[in-house]
Amino acid sequence: MHYRRALTVLSLFCLMTVLVAAAVIDDKPMLGFSEEGAAQQRALEARYDALLNKDNLRQWMKRMTAQPQHVGSPHAKDNAEFMVSLFRSWGFEAEIEEFQVLFPTPKVRVVELVEPRFFSASLEEPDIPGDATSSIRENRLPPYNAYSADGDVTAELVYVNQGIPRDYEELERMGIDVAGKIVIARYGGSWRGIKPKVAAEHGAIGCILYSDPRDDGYFQGDVYPEGPYRMEFGTQLGSVLDMPLYPGDPLTPGVGATADAERLDRAEAPTLMTIPVLPISYGDAIELLDALGGPVAPASWRGALPLTYHVGPGPAKVHLKLEFDWKLTPAYNVIAKMRGAEYPDEWIVRGNHRDAWVFGAADPISGMVALMEEARAIGELAKTGWRPKRTLVYAGWDAEEPGLLGSTEWAEAHADELRQKAAIYINSDGNGRGFLGVGGSHTLEKFVNEVARDVIDPQTGVTVSERARARRRIGGDKEADTRPDLRISPLGSGSDYTPFLQHLGIASLNVGYGGENGGGSYHSAFDSFDHYTRFGDPTFDYGIALAQTAGRITLRFANADVLPYTFTNFADNVAKYVEEVSTLAETMRAETKRHNDLVAANAFALSADPTKQYVPPEAKDPVPYLNFAPLQNALAALKTSAKACDAALREHRSTLDAATHQRLNDVLLHTERAMTRDQGLPRRSWFRHHIYAPGFYTGYGVKTLPGVREAIEQRDWEETAEQIEIVSGVLERVTAEIDRARAIATADGGR
Amino acid sequence: MHYRRALTVLSLFCLMTVLVAAAVIDDKPMLGFSEEGAAQQRALEARYDALLNKDNLRQWMKRMTAQPQHVGSPHAKDNAEFMVSLFRSWGFEAEIEEFQVLFPTPKVRVVELVEPRFFSASLEEPDIPGDATSSIRENRLPPYNAYSADGDVTAELVYVNQGIPRDYEELERMGIDVAGKIVIARYGGSWRGIKPKVAAEHGAIGCILYSDPRDDGYFQGDVYPEGPYRMEFGTQLGSVLDMPLYPGDPLTPGVGATADAERLDRAEAPTLMTIPVLPISYGDAIELLDALGGPVAPASWRGALPLTYHVGPGPAKVHLKLEFDWKLTPAYNVIAKMRGAEYPDEWIVRGNHRDAWVFGAADPISGMVALMEEARAIGELAKTGWRPKRTLVYAGWDAEEPGLLGSTEWAEAHADELRQKAAIYINSDGNGRGFLGVGGSHTLEKFVNEVARDVIDPQTGVTVSERARARRRIGGDKEADTRPDLRISPLGSGSDYTPFLQHLGIASLNVGYGGENGGGSYHSAFDSFDHYTRFGDPTFDYGIALAQTAGRITLRFANADVLPYTFTNFADNVAKYVEEVSTLAETMRAETKRHNDLVAANAFALSADPTKQYVPPEAKDPVPYLNFAPLQNALAALKTSAKACDAALREHRSTLDAATHQRLNDVLLHTERAMTRDQGLPRRSWFRHHIYAPGFYTGYGVKTLPGVREAIEQRDWEETAEQIEIVSGVLERVTAEIDRARAIATADGGR
Repeated sequence: MHYRRALTVLSLFCLMTVLVAAAVIDDKPMLGFSEEGAAQQRALEARYDALLNKDNLRQWMKRMTAQPQHVGSPHAKDNAEFMVSLFRSWGFEAEIEEFQVLFPTPKVRVVELVEPRFFSASLEEPDIPGDATSSIRENRLPPYNAYSADGDVTAELVYVNQGIPRDYEELERMGIDVAGKIVIARYGGSWRGIKPKVAAEHGAIGCILYSDPRDDGYFQGDVYPEGPYRMEFGTQLGSVLDMPLYPGDPLTPGVGATADAERLDRAEAPTLMTIPVLPISYGDAIELLDALGGPVAPASWRGALPLTYHVGPGPAKVHLKLEFDWKLTPAYNVIAKMRGAEYPDEWIVRGNHRDAWVFGAADPISGMVALMEEARAIGELAKTGWRPKRTLVYAGWDAEEPGLLGSTEWAEAHADELRQKAAIYINSDGNGRGFLGVGGSHTLEKFVNEVARDVIDPQTGVTVSERARARRRIGGDKEADTRPDLRISPLGSGSDYTPFLQHLGIASLNVGYGGENGGGSYHSAFDSFDHYTRFGDPTFDYGIALAQTAGRITLRFANADVLPYTFTNFADNVAKYVEEVSTLAETMRAETKRHNDLVAANAFALSADPTKQYVPPEAKDPVPYLNFAPLQNALAALKTSAKACDAALREHRSTLDAATHQRLNDVLLHTERAMTRDQGLPRRSWFRHHIYAPGFYTGYGVKTLPGVREAIEQRDWEETAEQIEIVSGVLERVTAEIDRARAIATADGGR
Repeated sequence: MHYRRALTVLSLFCLMTVLVAAAVIDDKPMLGFSEEGAAQQRALEARYDALLNKDNLRQWMKRMTAQPQHVGSPHAKDNAEFMVSLFRSWGFEAEIEEFQVLFPTPKVRVVELVEPRFFSASLEEPDIPGDATSSIRENRLPPYNAYSADGDVTAELVYVNQGIPRDYEELERMGIDVAGKIVIARYGGSWRGIKPKVAAEHGAIGCILYSDPRDDGYFQGDVYPEGPYRMEFGTQLGSVLDMPLYPGDPLTPGVGATADAERLDRAEAPTLMTIPVLPISYGDAIELLDALGGPVAPASWRGALPLTYHVGPGPAKVHLKLEFDWKLTPAYNVIAKMRGAEYPDEWIVRGNHRDAWVFGAADPISGMVALMEEARAIGELAKTGWRPKRTLVYAGWDAEEPGLLGSTEWAEAHADELRQKAAIYINSDGNGRGFLGVGGSHTLEKFVNEVARDVIDPQTGVTVSERARARRRIGGDKEADTRPDLRISPLGSGSDYTPFLQHLGIASLNVGYGGENGGGSYHSAFDSFDHYTRFGDPTFDYGIALAQTAGRITLRFANADVLPYTFTNFADNVAKYVEEVSTLAETMRAETKRHNDLVAANAFALSADPTKQYVPPEAKDPVPYLNFAPLQNALAALKTSAKACDAALREHRSTLDAATHQRLNDVLLHTERAMTRDQGLPRRSWFRHHIYAPGFYTGYGVKTLPGVREAIEQRDWEETAEQIEIVSGVLERVTAEIDRARAIATADGGR
């Protein structure tokens, strides 16, 4: 009976596919277009959809993932040339743009347990039956962390959980100091580079990272090849560059890493890791963890290995020896342009990275092939005589994996032109079966919601918007019960949008599907064609859904009369962030008060087990009352102006003439730039955006209103006050830009 | 540096020990006593404390746990006789009171995996080096669940997580039916008897319980003998009698199981399990779980075994065969009395069970030996000429483990006398190193808080009240920052207070220490003297702390002029429960509304993975608005009367004469009886208390205002309305009793 009911639901889906597919071709309004223009655009999109062919995605993925394709590998260069030839065949002006970047590769890797018994870690991912590329060893990088220091250290081992700052607070309570020790941390909870960085700050002399089966191994599901999850010796490669300081080539911050660029000495480069760090599998890690003594790890630190997790230090003693070949390597960005017919100096930049750690079927080729199919279909449209009004720039970035090197060097090399011309940067990366996920600038929130209402989910037949909303509601997001637009996530870092959004202030989107492609192949040799076509997106239907989504974004931005920014949603999200930072301060004040009361009452010591070593925490400086009024006043003005501007654009859009469009677009295209300042954020001037940044101190994802939020988190009240003033000023400048746009729309529209 | 700071904290403790020890001998007021009486009582307690000797606890434990001592075993009888002789030597009138109870023991136990491969479960706990009693096999019960049905079944296996009702809702979503299957459930999340009961209600034909290492094995800490946690083949024995219906002998509900009592036929006994059920170790369970296919278990269902938890059904097929010897067995309660000098017909009943599943060092002997030392010291005081004003009744209950049989049969056999005479029932059970924990009647909350401020924690030197408060505050209980009295927990079931509190309406307390004696020896042969003296309470200092705590409770109740009940704290707790049940209804109303909206929007189906079988839930009947006014009005009156009565007792206590004391105590002693009704709770008339009961449908611990709360939980709105009226009536009767007490105190005190 249950089974029959499940079937009925599936039948209902099929029926709904038909109904909804019919429903989306009606003539809803479209942001940035007149009624007539919207109808034409929808007709164009229908032709575009019809051109998409998922067989191309499968064939390209198979070819591009047939060999290892990290930056500097022969196959990566071959793929770049393959892509250039394809883009040219589709009618684009395509070329390879080359940079010379620092990319260390391993020469020596040793991890040995030397006490209380000897064990030598395998440090290799094995061949897997049924995974065709797993046995390829030529030109393949072994498991390592790029930008680790060279080193040869032997010391007692300490387990530090995820190795993030709050874990060291816990270690301090246990009276455990990692100075002079080697730490072992499980992956997860932060950008991996934070783990060795924080370890080094605490005096550790080496760092081992491992993938606990709790996080992406057998605890989550069946392991490869029976299921998608990380098998015993699967290992996560990855960069440990200090990207929250600046991404890109470590030797050329702020400028393109051309052959003749001025370079830092390697010894001065501030984003290089200062201690040796290496990733290992849980097949190797279990031997190290099982040899640890000392206190039992706190409950939240324990993974899924069949042992009692102890913290150490010792009796386990470990020998870690690493040597790297610190060479400059050519990075080959593929850049393909289609010149705009009306506004050639307004650019729509659309990118995905090409390079992988090993074979990279999911990361990045699943997104890359969707971008390629999107470009091919647009090329086909162009062959029929249609041209985009604005210039399309398609990019296949190299060297994203080591630290966004390809995109960052290109963005730095073309910074002035991009600041002048770029209307939007649209990013994708790995893609899979599941739900639409969008992060980006909130001036694009309403626009991207409109797009999501026009793309049909291939499995259920409802729109991808409706499916995403259902998931959020079931997940407990009550706002999604009623808010007309789904919130898009603010962007931190982790893919190639960072130089465009956070360094140059170009409104950006990051688009992809996923959530039903779970697994543990991330940054491993098992991220392969065979793995992806069994567990990622076997039919490539979600590759097509990505091409439909990103293609619509690209085509609408390319053709709109008025660039489809809106500001009410932006103001609504900023209001949320302002509320969050003021609540953060209030919460910290109350918690500090209570903490100090508990310290005064000796409650920490009294509630601890006297037979265990415990160092009670000390009192903290109280949190003062802070003046958030400048931010609140700036926000109030922003809200008013945003509402007025959106209304003006809605009301007058269809009556504006072409010259007004151009004046208006010139303002709109630059609005996001007003969110940046040349001085950048405190202690990291490369990051100029003042609404979004990756977390600097904590290593988590995005920090919104980063100057204010991080100053509060660091309990720096002077800097908080300064940053409140600075961010208020930024909001005022954005408001002034919005007012300019409204004035243009109203004055002309009123004629 | 950290280590030194830890030492400093310890030194501070030592200093505070001296200060606080000095502080507690001052002349604070004492509930129920005049100023002069309080000083005398404190002097008595100081003499009592000085008599306590922890060496006795160790010696008695060693002797009593030297052989298996379940009900019916030779050593249990020997221990009973030993205790009787001791109590007599201490000056008590002591005797064994015998009942004949149904106690099945296993004859045949087979668990075999028969598909897809063969495996025969060991079903034995092995010898452990360094654990002296682990090798004893004579007279020892093997792992089993008492009151399981006989059976011989072979069927596919299904993993049902903890086997509680919400797990079956999840199974329904997965489209999995357990009818005709054998289920395997991990221990935890409910009283174990609920698991096979709910499985049988869903059509399962057999049930296997196992101890997952996540819950009390290596995930929690080092396993025995290196640490205290459950080793690979450690197994939890236990009863699966349907105790939420009624505890005690299954054949004699409501009456004492004397030799000539009228008995139900075994086939009619409603508390016997209807399907075969057996506990196994994780060393055995891993073979069964590893053979399961079907969906991956939801994240919260997964344990710490090194495998991917699947739900099934099959391909694992299991053969479960059980046969029991269904015999009547004599249960020997030890009953020792010391007659009260002034009010011999007012009884203070103090009990702990004697019987264990195997050796039972922690459970129950750690509590039993503290009770014995308490009785010995009181006996010593009595030898110096002091006598308690009221009669003391000390009890060592037999057959608690199978289902509170010894205490229940005794309480039923002496029901009339107990209802008439018992002022309080004070229970203890297993005890260990750590923090004071108290559950009980809230008319005793203020009293027991006063006691807890007069007992010094042996490890930190502060009062056990202060240490318990520190722990609560650190644990996030903000109420404990300011509320003068620590809340005591309401009592559900799980030890011998149940027949006294919930059947007879005698105000009860359950007292013990723990929280730093973690481990996995519960109901296993490894709950041994060797285990306890390494990990439970190695110095027996917390045995002495229990004797000091329960001894003070006993002595103050024995000697008080006015029985030390108060009612403001009771009203405050009832107010919390009234708030909880009305909030429960409101929350259910909002959640039902949202659930139905999500069903209507097809959101459950849309957010599910279409490649997995999923049965979306159906809409639920909406929750009506309910009339809580009768409860709120009754509560308002209770609060007023409670405050007035407590004030009157405080104001007039020292001026009342002896005759008034007696009239007042006669009312106070019976107040808790007014919380019961002869009709009992719906569908389980044995449970008569209307403020506290164990959960009937869910198998969790306590349900406060059980008639109302469970009717809401079961969405029975008609019964909710009835129960609101009934409980309001109960509160009104309690209020009338409180008013009577106030009138007596005021009228006489005003002279």
